[in-house]
Amino acid sequence: MFGKIEHLGIAVKNLEQANEVYTKLLGRQPYKSEAVESEAVETSFFMTGENKIELLAATSDDSAIAKYVAKRGEGIHHVAFAVEDIKAELVRLEKEGFQILNKEPKRGADNKWVAFVHPKGTNGVLVELCQEIEE
Amino acid sequence: MFGKIEHLGIAVKNLEQANEVYTKLLGRQPYKSEAVESEAVETSFFMTGENKIELLAATSDDSAIAKYVAKRGEGIHHVAFAVEDIKAELVRLEKEGFQILNKEPKRGADNKWVAFVHPKGTNGVLVELCQEIEE
Repeated sequence: MFGKIEHLGIAVKNLEQANEVYTKLLGRQPYKSEAVESEAVETSFFMTGENKIELLAATSDDSAIAKYVAKRGEGIHHVAFAVEDIKAELVRLEKEGFQILNKEPKRGADNKWVAFVHPKGTNGVLVELCQEIEE
Repeated sequence: MFGKIEHLGIAVKNLEQANEVYTKLLGRQPYKSEAVESEAVETSFFMTGENKIELLAATSDDSAIAKYVAKRGEGIHHVAFAVEDIKAELVRLEKEGFQILNKEPKRGADNKWVAFVHPKGTNGVLVELCQEIEE
């Protein structure tokens, strides 16, 4: 079972410009900036209530975010849900017929294990599962 | 200042089909279905943690949702943030230079006053503000 919306990922062209816009919109500053080199993105995170907004900008033309923005323009890229046991959820979703993009959870931004569900089985929505990494 | 993500609105072609998908994905049933005649949409709502997922399907070809799906396909249509004083937030956002689509809040689904911010000023994201109607 899914928990809260952990974050909403928004693909942007220029992180600095988008940080200014979302600081004005949400009424607060980002609490963190982080590069995820494996995905060739730089990110910034805002809290809003118990949820987060993640802004994502590509650092390379090969990045999935660069391709997304080139094809669809800036906008909401994915929604991430908090789960307590990501491996169990991936087994459950696969049995339900969803297509999991990475069967082994990988390290994402903001200290999370993450996995993605293909949007073709979720009415066009790229769904991320997130579990806090405890070490 | 914005609060939590009140809901995420997902535009779909067929509400019945999407209800089945999101019941499997989220691991729970929708708690409510509601038609919003002024917008020519039918909706269903799921809780996920403290947040909601709103599925939206057009009931007329003139509906904004029908046009969105025809142009962009199914997918995330808007994100709605909870605010405590929607009128004050609209004044604040207008001063910050955002373009408000309806300056007077209108009645939306799920017993809310709602207003929208144009996506051209928010990096392509259609932003909704929501305040619970108290009567």
